[in-house]
Amino acid sequence: MREPVLLTPGPLTTSLATKTAMLRDWGSWDTAFNQLSASVCSDLLAIADAGDSHVCVPLQGSGTFAVEAAIGTLLPRDGTLLVLVNGAYGERMARLTEVMGRRVVRLTFADHQAVCPRRLAAALAAHPECSHVGVIHCETSTGLLNPLEQIAGVVAAAGRALIIDSMSAFGALPVLARQVPFAALVSSANKCLEGVPGMAFVLAERQALLASAANSHSLALDLHDQYVYLQRSGQWRFTPPTHVLAGLRAALDQYLAAGGQPARLARYQANAARLRDGLRRLGLRSYLAEDVQAPIIFTVHAPPLPGYRFAALYQAVRARGFILYPGKLTSCETFRIGCIGALDGAEIDQALAALAAALDELGYLPAAEVAA
Amino acid sequence: MREPVLLTPGPLTTSLATKTAMLRDWGSWDTAFNQLSASVCSDLLAIADAGDSHVCVPLQGSGTFAVEAAIGTLLPRDGTLLVLVNGAYGERMARLTEVMGRRVVRLTFADHQAVCPRRLAAALAAHPECSHVGVIHCETSTGLLNPLEQIAGVVAAAGRALIIDSMSAFGALPVLARQVPFAALVSSANKCLEGVPGMAFVLAERQALLASAANSHSLALDLHDQYVYLQRSGQWRFTPPTHVLAGLRAALDQYLAAGGQPARLARYQANAARLRDGLRRLGLRSYLAEDVQAPIIFTVHAPPLPGYRFAALYQAVRARGFILYPGKLTSCETFRIGCIGALDGAEIDQALAALAAALDELGYLPAAEVAA
Repeated sequence: MREPVLLTPGPLTTSLATKTAMLRDWGSWDTAFNQLSASVCSDLLAIADAGDSHVCVPLQGSGTFAVEAAIGTLLPRDGTLLVLVNGAYGERMARLTEVMGRRVVRLTFADHQAVCPRRLAAALAAHPECSHVGVIHCETSTGLLNPLEQIAGVVAAAGRALIIDSMSAFGALPVLARQVPFAALVSSANKCLEGVPGMAFVLAERQALLASAANSHSLALDLHDQYVYLQRSGQWRFTPPTHVLAGLRAALDQYLAAGGQPARLARYQANAARLRDGLRRLGLRSYLAEDVQAPIIFTVHAPPLPGYRFAALYQAVRARGFILYPGKLTSCETFRIGCIGALDGAEIDQALAALAAALDELGYLPAAEVAA
Repeated sequence: MREPVLLTPGPLTTSLATKTAMLRDWGSWDTAFNQLSASVCSDLLAIADAGDSHVCVPLQGSGTFAVEAAIGTLLPRDGTLLVLVNGAYGERMARLTEVMGRRVVRLTFADHQAVCPRRLAAALAAHPECSHVGVIHCETSTGLLNPLEQIAGVVAAAGRALIIDSMSAFGALPVLARQVPFAALVSSANKCLEGVPGMAFVLAERQALLASAANSHSLALDLHDQYVYLQRSGQWRFTPPTHVLAGLRAALDQYLAAGGQPARLARYQANAARLRDGLRRLGLRSYLAEDVQAPIIFTVHAPPLPGYRFAALYQAVRARGFILYPGKLTSCETFRIGCIGALDGAEIDQALAALAAALDELGYLPAAEVAA
């Protein structure tokens, strides 16, 4: 059988061109590899139109490594981070900041509600000690889209610096540095850019980064040190994931050839609309209201049946060639379906057919559908 | 032209079978991927015959990330690490420990001298505050092999815990947990195991790791948290480098099929002997004495000519299909040639021929050779 299609928010299904770009070994000290690094960083900055104001610092590891690195490098040791929490990734950002010994103020919202810019403005007024604000662009734990431009406006008006975790949004949802002022935006290779996992990157405001020497709690995660070394030598400080970077280069080539961010967003929006309609036809309810739903990943209520088990549904769908994603909510039983990756309408339709057949086989089809 | 052969200590030249194993996308939550992780960890433990006493914790990122993680997790916050320094990687270990705010005592040796176990014993007696000792197994900055078994004996006799950076040695040079007591051994996928870069791993003494909760200065680099999550769920805490892990699985399959550690060592020893003889014939002198030289990478004195430039030699050898490695010594002009990776006598002979032709072209052949 073919390997399954991933309906997951990264690692996701990548194109064959992206994967075959990994069939070469690169010397990490070689000029050809340095050029590869530089071209990737330049293209990532261009996506945010940030080349004048920001620099791109690549980092080994998963996206969380880069979130920790951005906060650990940019937040002064005696600084306080206000974290906007409406899901698991917001809470993770707060926790990792606490683990590194920095102070945190949480501003918490329900996980189906977007961050409220007015409450943020009030919190910043009440907490002058918060030099930085952290926000999750798209909360992958639910699929919720936060109103980034409004949030950035409030943060800038209050004279604070914004750190954006745009892990599962960057490349598809627009972020232009001139409209969305940020000190740092963090994302990774294996989300909307459709590379493979193993590296992340931070778009950091140049002056803020240059002023951040010796803030970091960690050598490996010191973005200032990483940047200065890269600038001086063209090389990463420590062994880079050469094949992963080559895969990202190939993924970016495809991204640009297809039309860049607007084209990527359009494809994901079409995938999302098709998926949403198909789920409705199966009688499955989305967890989020449409006005806060990003076209990235859907959280779906489990069929309200006493015998329901996600593991059974997962296996039945997997046997038909598709990989679902588990829910991450504690309040109710859900599962998730992503619509990002090298997928279009054909795969979405196949996935819906597989889901329908699996639900039917397990007796999980909601009553309305069975009656219809 | 074919891509060049890497004579570098990792990233290195990998087999086509290792690279083609990356032509599949894996769901990081899927049982098939969990089994891949478990099988890799089990095989890594078996190489050190450590399955009864130790656990294997994989980590995203480069080897340095895992060295920092091992020290940050196992060394108590008020502990002191005695670091044995006879090269750049020993110094890096000391520095990253200081960056994370822990105390360090350096015991320094010349970079062409192995660590002296008697001096270590004396230092441990003089420094009862040093709960842990850090050592570099093979100093990649020169290629020097430290006497690991004797060092481990001294550390154990003094009742301290040993943390081994075996980055460029593990898998080729023998390390058996029963003969070399260690709290942690760190290595990475892209060295003697001949995988691709993007992940590292720590073989950690089970009881020491389980007793280390909340030591870590970092969420991303908390090995205790990583291990507990992996044990509970079968999954990595944060997005794993799925393709890199699949490459390592394939590399381990080839490693085991070829005869494991003794066979890997024998191949590298044969490469090293061939390389050493060939360098001698070219009139080039090795930096290290034979009794401290590991069969991993050679540091070679530059030809003692006034016009010598490494960049010119590098380009001339690269044009012939081979990538050299720069020297890392400040005391004298050197370059490095690795003999690890998917290479045997054929590639070593080709590399020597390329080096000879490049030296000749540039007028860099030492006088003795020109005269002969």
